[in-house]
Amino acid sequence: SIGPTVAALLGDHRSGRSTPTETLRRTLDLVEARGSDGTWITVVDRPTALARAAALEADAEARLLPLYGVPFGVKDSIDVAGWPTTLACPAYAYTATTTAPVVQRLLDAGAVLVGKTNLDQFATGLNGTRTPYPVPRSVYGGDLISGGSSSGSAVAVAVGEVPFAVATDTAGSGRVPPALNGVLGFKPSRGLLSTVGLVPACRSLDCISLIGTAVEDLRTVFGVMVGLDERDPWTRPRVRWTSSVEDLVVGLPDPAELSFFGDAPMAAAHHAARARVQELFGTSTPSLQPFLQAGELLYSGPWVAERLVEFGDFLAEHPDDVLPVVGQIISGGGRFSAADVFRAQYRLAELRAVVARVFTRTDVLVLPTVGTTFTVPEVLADPVTTNTVLGHYTHFANLLDLCAVAVPAGLTADGRPASLMVLGPALSDDQVLAVAARIALTD
Amino acid sequence: SIGPTVAALLGDHRSGRSTPTETLRRTLDLVEARGSDGTWITVVDRPTALARAAALEADAEARLLPLYGVPFGVKDSIDVAGWPTTLACPAYAYTATTTAPVVQRLLDAGAVLVGKTNLDQFATGLNGTRTPYPVPRSVYGGDLISGGSSSGSAVAVAVGEVPFAVATDTAGSGRVPPALNGVLGFKPSRGLLSTVGLVPACRSLDCISLIGTAVEDLRTVFGVMVGLDERDPWTRPRVRWTSSVEDLVVGLPDPAELSFFGDAPMAAAHHAARARVQELFGTSTPSLQPFLQAGELLYSGPWVAERLVEFGDFLAEHPDDVLPVVGQIISGGGRFSAADVFRAQYRLAELRAVVARVFTRTDVLVLPTVGTTFTVPEVLADPVTTNTVLGHYTHFANLLDLCAVAVPAGLTADGRPASLMVLGPALSDDQVLAVAARIALTD
Repeated sequence: SIGPTVAALLGDHRSGRSTPTETLRRTLDLVEARGSDGTWITVVDRPTALARAAALEADAEARLLPLYGVPFGVKDSIDVAGWPTTLACPAYAYTATTTAPVVQRLLDAGAVLVGKTNLDQFATGLNGTRTPYPVPRSVYGGDLISGGSSSGSAVAVAVGEVPFAVATDTAGSGRVPPALNGVLGFKPSRGLLSTVGLVPACRSLDCISLIGTAVEDLRTVFGVMVGLDERDPWTRPRVRWTSSVEDLVVGLPDPAELSFFGDAPMAAAHHAARARVQELFGTSTPSLQPFLQAGELLYSGPWVAERLVEFGDFLAEHPDDVLPVVGQIISGGGRFSAADVFRAQYRLAELRAVVARVFTRTDVLVLPTVGTTFTVPEVLADPVTTNTVLGHYTHFANLLDLCAVAVPAGLTADGRPASLMVLGPALSDDQVLAVAARIALTD
Repeated sequence: SIGPTVAALLGDHRSGRSTPTETLRRTLDLVEARGSDGTWITVVDRPTALARAAALEADAEARLLPLYGVPFGVKDSIDVAGWPTTLACPAYAYTATTTAPVVQRLLDAGAVLVGKTNLDQFATGLNGTRTPYPVPRSVYGGDLISGGSSSGSAVAVAVGEVPFAVATDTAGSGRVPPALNGVLGFKPSRGLLSTVGLVPACRSLDCISLIGTAVEDLRTVFGVMVGLDERDPWTRPRVRWTSSVEDLVVGLPDPAELSFFGDAPMAAAHHAARARVQELFGTSTPSLQPFLQAGELLYSGPWVAERLVEFGDFLAEHPDDVLPVVGQIISGGGRFSAADVFRAQYRLAELRAVVARVFTRTDVLVLPTVGTTFTVPEVLADPVTTNTVLGHYTHFANLLDLCAVAVPAGLTADGRPASLMVLGPALSDDQVLAVAARIALTD
């Protein structure tokens, strides 16, 4: 039930086949019809959205805007002036007084904000169950988790309420939920999309990310949002790439290095998708070990203390207002010393150097986005182990300064979504999107 | 009493005006004559050095080597196979089984190792008094400190024993001692000289550095040592620069931002040297504040915990074998948490971004290397405050990923050495050396 793409909506709005008002009415009808399904934390009120659509229609020049009348959602860890920012923690919520510059660029481009989407509390989780609001489910049913932390952003796109949503990605939050809902998740290189106005999870790793249903849409929306921002210390310029996708070398690790955690149908779906990649590209066989070792560093290392920098004071003052599993994870950051951080960063520097050499012989890497899926009861029964499994292939990307796109890649024999993840070195965003587009075409 | 330059020795050796054997004899005579002055911790034995010189002379092709028969010293925190590495801590000392690759490149280029030079213990200090061996003094007399931690390396060059020495620089160790001894100190950009075989002080910041008496010598020796090393995670390629030094914009901060700690003669000497720089270059007036704020971060922040990573176990097992002031500083790293490191790194990221913008309008910055000098009794009476003052202008360079050269810049009215420091962004080593050469010519 994926809805019209950004490109389709723009074509309709510009040609007059439909109007922003009609699109917004349809969107809000759909949101209302689904009710309290855990997708949205705050939804725009109908008169405001329709007034915005009408204003766009009344402005003769607005029709030329790159996102004229396109509805979108924003993860509720990102500020929009006048809206509450909750981080899925009502006691933490505050009303934002400024709008994150990446969101402002979308609004300035004619996009219409539909609402703020649900997330794992404090963006701490990859499973989507860690919320005091209703727990969203995957659109594939069977009580499958939506994935997290950008749970609502992925579901809103997957059910066709909005053609794209703004999410975030620290350890996989922008890739796992799209993988579990059959849509695209693009985590650009760190520093291309300003993180100003985002409440940090791990500030040294956080990225703004995009969820959508067509690679061309991701390119359009990314093109609107990208830009240097002096207020973001990690800001850096985009690098444009104009060569031919056919010439790229795609790294596919030895299958023996891939883990599917006993999920044979997922392994089969992955290998079928991988076979199509092998027909499309010249390939190499880099070892997955330095990537997984970096992921292990994130999972077991001191970066969790970054969450303590942001939420430590709140947690100390409001211990009962935080979900127990989230509180335990964040307070776990207190067990690491300064020396632990430096030690882990030395190891990371070594792994980064190894990975840099991998990417001299390989342009992009293609992996499963997730090795298996879980149901909501499975995650609630064992919230930490399941979460770690979900991050097996996503944990390392930001530590290693990579960019990535999760691409739908068919279904398992039992009807669950498979997803390929295309990963490249920093600033290879154009290449990674080009490979994703070629893979998506053949899906 | 500065000795012949590398260039002069090479000219003499190649033309036959003198031989490596004669040069080594003269060097060892000088070392012997000065006796236990705290310059050297271990000196090569005469037969070994003379055999090495004779072997070079017997090899017809050796004459073409870029450092044919040139004697040099190595700071005693860097491994040379078969030699003790002491770090100025006899209980810590071990006999190295491999040679640091940067030293090996010098040996392969025909240079002859004279010995391992004294240092502040564990390279922890900028003053030169923190050693259980005799405390070296500045060649300017008056009981002035040599500066540290590369104390012996600077003195060996300043008294003419060797034309260059290999040192290190974490917070100024490769610039303060040259400044206090009237010679040049070059701290290249991080990652150009392999740190393999160096016992780390702060591994994320440590650089191999060079001390010499002519910029052209620094270029020659650096050219021999530079090169990628896959074993060094921070390795990166040199960037060559071939434009004209006359076109560079030199940043000179507002004099009100400079501190001389009440040392009016030093302030006068600096301003006289600065006036010559203003005649040589187009100038800008960047604020010194982001640089000093980064220095303050190093001085008061969690990076000291890096020393604990390296020396913590030794310190715990041998508390009585470490100088009290060094032991106190290193164990002070234990007071910082993981969250403290991330918090400081966020602040550093902000300052790095500000400094990157400074260097879009300014090519290099010229500052005092040190704001004042101290005598040995002054440092012993107040070892921490004096050390902090010595690092006022040097603390920030490695945190901000800069390169730097300390250049002799005349004397104070009371006969103490002044030094200008040329600083540039990462990989601007050629520019920084070119500016240093132009300043040195007019000194």
